Amino acid sequence: MEIKPYTFELLCRIRKTSPLIHNITNFVAMNSSANILLALGASPVMAHSIDEVAEMTAIANALVLNIGTIQEDWMESMLVAAKAANQKGMPVILDPVGAGATSLRTRAVKRIMDETTIAVLRGNASEIFSLAASSIKTKGVDSSLALSAQIVEAAKEMAREKRCIVSISGEKDLITDGTRVLRVANGQPVMTKVTGVGCGLSAVTAAFCAVAREEILFATTAAFALYGLCADLAIQISDKPGSFFVAFIDSLYTVGEKDIDSLLLVSEE
Amino acid sequence: MEIKPYTFELLCRIRKTSPLIHNITNFVAMNSSANILLALGASPVMAHSIDEVAEMTAIANALVLNIGTIQEDWMESMLVAAKAANQKGMPVILDPVGAGATSLRTRAVKRIMDETTIAVLRGNASEIFSLAASSIKTKGVDSSLALSAQIVEAAKEMAREKRCIVSISGEKDLITDGTRVLRVANGQPVMTKVTGVGCGLSAVTAAFCAVAREEILFATTAAFALYGLCADLAIQISDKPGSFFVAFIDSLYTVGEKDIDSLLLVSEE
Amino acid sequence: MEIKPYTFELLCRIRKTSPLIHNITNFVAMNSSANILLALGASPVMAHSIDEVAEMTAIANALVLNIGTIQEDWMESMLVAAKAANQKGMPVILDPVGAGATSLRTRAVKRIMDETTIAVLRGNASEIFSLAASSIKTKGVDSSLALSAQIVEAAKEMAREKRCIVSISGEKDLITDGTRVLRVANGQPVMTKVTGVGCGLSAVTAAFCAVAREEILFATTAAFALYGLCADLAIQISDKPGSFFVAFIDSLYTVGEKDIDSLLLVSEE
Repeated sequence: MEIKPYTFELLCRIRKTSPLIHNITNFVAMNSSANILLALGASPVMAHSIDEVAEMTAIANALVLNIGTIQEDWMESMLVAAKAANQKGMPVILDPVGAGATSLRTRAVKRIMDETTIAVLRGNASEIFSLAASSIKTKGVDSSLALSAQIVEAAKEMAREKRCIVSISGEKDLITDGTRVLRVANGQPVMTKVTGVGCGLSAVTAAFCAVAREEILFATTAAFALYGLCADLAIQISDKPGSFFVAFIDSLYTVGEKDIDSLLLVSEE
Repeated sequence: MEIKPYTFELLCRIRKTSPLIHNITNFVAMNSSANILLALGASPVMAHSIDEVAEMTAIANALVLNIGTIQEDWMESMLVAAKAANQKGMPVILDPVGAGATSLRTRAVKRIMDETTIAVLRGNASEIFSLAASSIKTKGVDSSLALSAQIVEAAKEMAREKRCIVSISGEKDLITDGTRVLRVANGQPVMTKVTGVGCGLSAVTAAFCAVAREEILFATTAAFALYGLCADLAIQISDKPGSFFVAFIDSLYTVGEKDIDSLLLVSEE
Repeated sequence: MEIKPYTFELLCRIRKTSPLIHNITNFVAMNSSANILLALGASPVMAHSIDEVAEMTAIANALVLNIGTIQEDWMESMLVAAKAANQKGMPVILDPVGAGATSLRTRAVKRIMDETTIAVLRGNASEIFSLAASSIKTKGVDSSLALSAQIVEAAKEMAREKRCIVSISGEKDLITDGTRVLRVANGQPVMTKVTGVGCGLSAVTAAFCAVAREEILFATTAAFALYGLCADLAIQISDKPGSFFVAFIDSLYTVGEKDIDSLLLVSEE
């Protein structure tokens, strides 16, 4: 798999076919996720009522479940939507925002992963680690060790056990299917100073998976790399969070083959 | 009716009197609708609880109902608010986001239109078409035909039947009272690449109707034209969605008589 | 208390320790409050479900309650969270958005203030006045009199009665503990043309109180002054609301000791 041409190919497919991405996401990230998807070329829709989620999933091309600001009835809607997505073989991306912070969130993620099939789990190191088997987990994770050997093992084991891609945003992103481990070095620290940027990557991952055939490991890697690359372009405009985010949205809209060819930083461990 | 001086007159009234616009709208567009109304000179308020909507409507000057991210209890609040608005003769603007996509949304719009009196229905061609009488509707609408003769007929018939203004955003906007058909050529394609821009127009239409007396057809046309004109001004700053939207907000704040006189593009069919 | 060095000291503490600010806030301001807190250097979390608010408060350093877009079940969550915060002695900041506009909102504020202990109440003059004892209140407040003697008296009395800081945003902000009255002259009128700016100040006040020890009166004053100062910096970039807000976020991220020393405008009455 040549990741650069593949990334560009998927980007072109997104822009050409405008896949419909059904988001059941948190209140904070709804607006930014929609704008990120639109700038990329995808079509976002937000719908959470149990009275319509199955129908919306039926016409969508990928589903994003994001548990930030979760509440009980939204949880039920997520399960209904994920089951509908599973039935039609459509990719489901799960963003475990704040898993480990409260038992409601940890429980929500576990329930979704137990009762439905997830294509990609995308979070930060602390969230992913909080979901790892207790055999791996010791006493919480020091964020400075975020992408340490311990986390790599936890991610690989989880990917094998759950048969999904596990992807971790960090200084150097990690994407694994349980066997192979890919790394993305694109991205900028200021991304952590803007809300919804992680959630937006989950949405972008959904768009990439929506237009990929089988290669979800590489589609996820392509999403991470392109997203980080757009931050690398935006930082040239501004390194302050307000104007950086504006430039980042602009970059998602304008990023092209030349940028990908010269700036994409993906490696395999 | 001279549309240019009328548009400027309504804009001045909005800026002078700051009409209070009560929005029961979707989670994605709440922030952007509020900012759009503030930049224009109106006063937005968002309130959806059934325990306060009637009271809020009582002190407001116009009501916006927007069914994106609708759920059952919000639906009930919309009906209560619309009835309160009808009782005091205050204009209600309905934005049927995603009508046709799920039965919940189609049903929500039909129920609002059956049980209350709407002043203006504002959507895109596919949404409006999904609500048209089956006598008009054939097998869905090709978006390339969006503003074709078929849509014009559907809009006119709906306007006559429901005794409201039907307005459709598109390459060339359409506003009709069932008899007259007005067209607005202002606006930019990049508006479809920013979330909440359509919803924002519904809110702006509410502000214009709030300060108009009887001429709702022309107030709606003025709202569409001014909104598109602000996009025409913003595109001169940037044609990329992130920075375009920032410039668009700025334009709503600074747009003046000279811009209206030289750039407003309204015609009658 | 030297307010300039104290303001800078608290800012440094926020940037160094990234206090976790638990927000139960309205749908409109969630995204902007999160971005404002991130730019400042704090860590925002939004969580409203009654199934997790106590746990979230337990790991947080301050709590913001904001009643814009309030609904019954969120109200219950606010009470649970505030009680958990009180138990651990963590500051609670209450933003009474729209108090006085509907009985639901007025009742919500009164219930929170009756059943829990608030460290800081932050609103505009009309909101604070609507909550004042009827002995003070006559027939509503003319906004042109917003910070008149009448309001100062109402704020002082409320602060003494409720044993909290009462702070009022306006042309010249007022912060009082019932005895002392501090004034902040920083800030720009265009702040009222961007949604969520007042809500964002409540969040910033929470961040300052989170890192202060006992001096809540001065921590609140420092928050107001720094916030207004960032607006004073941003207005030099743009005086239009879209681009002003982008520059304002950037200023929160870059503001430093030199700006504070030369531009902070705090006085005592």
